[in-house]
Amino acid sequence: MMRVIATLAVLLGLAVSAAADDLRGTGDLGIVIERASGSIAIVDTTNHAILGRVEGLGDVSHASAVYSRDERYVYVFGRDGGLTKIDMLTRKIVDRVVQSGNAIGGAISDDGRLIAVSNYEPGGVKVFNAETLDLVADIPAVYGKAGARSKTVGLVDAPGRRFVFSLWDAGETWIVDFSTGETPQVTKFADIGLNPYDGLITGDGRHYLAGLFGEDGLAHIDLWAEPPAPRRILDNYGRGEEKLPVYKMPHLEGWALAGDRFFLPAIGRHEVLAVDARSFEEIGRIKVKGQPVFAVARPDGRQVWVNFALPDNRFIQVIDVPTMTIVHEFEPGPAALHMEFSPRGHEVWISVRDADRVDVYDTRTFAKIAELPAMKPSGIFFTARAHRTGL
Amino acid sequence: MMRVIATLAVLLGLAVSAAADDLRGTGDLGIVIERASGSIAIVDTTNHAILGRVEGLGDVSHASAVYSRDERYVYVFGRDGGLTKIDMLTRKIVDRVVQSGNAIGGAISDDGRLIAVSNYEPGGVKVFNAETLDLVADIPAVYGKAGARSKTVGLVDAPGRRFVFSLWDAGETWIVDFSTGETPQVTKFADIGLNPYDGLITGDGRHYLAGLFGEDGLAHIDLWAEPPAPRRILDNYGRGEEKLPVYKMPHLEGWALAGDRFFLPAIGRHEVLAVDARSFEEIGRIKVKGQPVFAVARPDGRQVWVNFALPDNRFIQVIDVPTMTIVHEFEPGPAALHMEFSPRGHEVWISVRDADRVDVYDTRTFAKIAELPAMKPSGIFFTARAHRTGL
Repeated sequence: MMRVIATLAVLLGLAVSAAADDLRGTGDLGIVIERASGSIAIVDTTNHAILGRVEGLGDVSHASAVYSRDERYVYVFGRDGGLTKIDMLTRKIVDRVVQSGNAIGGAISDDGRLIAVSNYEPGGVKVFNAETLDLVADIPAVYGKAGARSKTVGLVDAPGRRFVFSLWDAGETWIVDFSTGETPQVTKFADIGLNPYDGLITGDGRHYLAGLFGEDGLAHIDLWAEPPAPRRILDNYGRGEEKLPVYKMPHLEGWALAGDRFFLPAIGRHEVLAVDARSFEEIGRIKVKGQPVFAVARPDGRQVWVNFALPDNRFIQVIDVPTMTIVHEFEPGPAALHMEFSPRGHEVWISVRDADRVDVYDTRTFAKIAELPAMKPSGIFFTARAHRTGL
Repeated sequence: MMRVIATLAVLLGLAVSAAADDLRGTGDLGIVIERASGSIAIVDTTNHAILGRVEGLGDVSHASAVYSRDERYVYVFGRDGGLTKIDMLTRKIVDRVVQSGNAIGGAISDDGRLIAVSNYEPGGVKVFNAETLDLVADIPAVYGKAGARSKTVGLVDAPGRRFVFSLWDAGETWIVDFSTGETPQVTKFADIGLNPYDGLITGDGRHYLAGLFGEDGLAHIDLWAEPPAPRRILDNYGRGEEKLPVYKMPHLEGWALAGDRFFLPAIGRHEVLAVDARSFEEIGRIKVKGQPVFAVARPDGRQVWVNFALPDNRFIQVIDVPTMTIVHEFEPGPAALHMEFSPRGHEVWISVRDADRVDVYDTRTFAKIAELPAMKPSGIFFTARAHRTGL
């Protein structure tokens, strides 16, 4: 009997000690999307380590993710309409709904209570309770007299329990405002331009920009204006040039606000556009190695890191913001798809998909400081995004 | 025997289940400094709850805090030179050193490895290993031919494992650069102005500003310039006016970058100064109710919230940034000392010291949504600061 009690104590002791070891902060965690296997790797950015893997997420090509405000849960938006909520600490799926047939991205409200998902099929936005994944609101993107439904793109959160998105087929931008409860007020802007393909909102939640695929230029809405109204910026930025075939759509969520300038990847051109952050007028262009996909500011805004579509997707170039010149070029490896900076910018993680690796670089010395194995890695998302608008 | 084993299983089950319940994210935590009792309250900002209390922190009047990059540990800088590292999850003191006789604030390096503390007595900065609190570097603030030591103020972190601070007695600003290891390179700027009393760095780590007590105006250093050099801005902003007695020094760490404007509390004047963020020239002044102490931007920059020195410290005023007018005034209660916004700005927590309360307000409706009991609360610091430069 005494021996059993001793065993009991030892076992309990082990259990308790295991529990204490399980405690950890969540501010330095992140995920890497592994598209071929429908999984995510959960990573520790302090120790450059993979902590574990969560499988069963469906089609996660082009997947993105947002975090709960406590940085414990990640919501992964799959290509197949899957919305999966995962506990970063237990590394288990907490809940999963397949909420449409074809989806592209999502957002979380500023209070952390609502998850919105942008759908291609059927076109529209669905909004879920972040706690339970119960449906809160279904907003079909109906336009025109025939009642057609548009694909929705460029979905972002805005301050005051709002979401903003654009309608690819309709050329519209909508604001849905949940500030008074679960029934949104919807404000629609027509004629923003031809085929908006992606959107972004500035970190302060003031300016919404939609990239246009059907014409050169972007749509801009100042959400502080009373009333807000869309206007065209960088109109015909490629005038007089022959269009190149577009190998991969650039991502506007990878836009960069650096100092008082925006840097935007030009579509189908070997250029990054520099835009004055006050006037939204073009102030210069930087010739780059290929068709830019992401142009991401290091968090201090001193540099902008650029990756490329095929056939140049082995390379990354670094732009020095004050001089607008390229100060560094390197070759992480085949299909360097995604870059994620540590929140204060001392390191950057880069997915090298076709080498099945994630590499970590020091952003000052450009030295590689770690390599982690991953299965066909693409998007990388750190928990610090929980505290930012528009990510 | 079977019964014992069953008990064992039940007990183990309980232990494991308790462990699972202990797991929690740390992104929505924070602390409230309780100055009278030398304690901190650990708070949950999602549920507006006090989770517990940690005592034994010494003199925490005017205390401030920074967070480890995993948002698990808080470092509290006490007035008495105490540097205390606390585990937010177990709510226990992990380590504590009394590193000087009289201190004022601290900072954590961008990689989370170094903690710097600013000392009055003896004057200088000490830098510690964030993991162990072992001393890494001692930087006495020696100036002039006689080798006197100055009080140091306005200590902030800057990108690239750097810290910046100013010397009250010497009128100097120093940059200490740990980018190459544990022995810092020190760069000194003389003649920045008379008696710098506090400093701040912009969120991108580019601009350092030191407020001057000995003269009207501030010192500005653009850390991107090659080489950086101090210059005076807002020179003689009070020219021709009679100085009022200063009841409480304003805090520059409570400065606000809102849109493309800075808002700074004027010393000894019932004014908040608006400054162009590009030219650093004054673009306006807002008359306020009393002598401003903090002028803090809501994270979206649309509003600036201002509190006051005695005899007006019962009040808070809210400035609308585009119109530079006061759009709201309210009376949280006696000694409304500190405001901390949720990271994306939907709520604000306010210490009402002499009511022994912390109140939570909705920043859109201005409605009070929670009251929490606290013992003579002053500073409030949320874990999201871990991911920001200069906080």
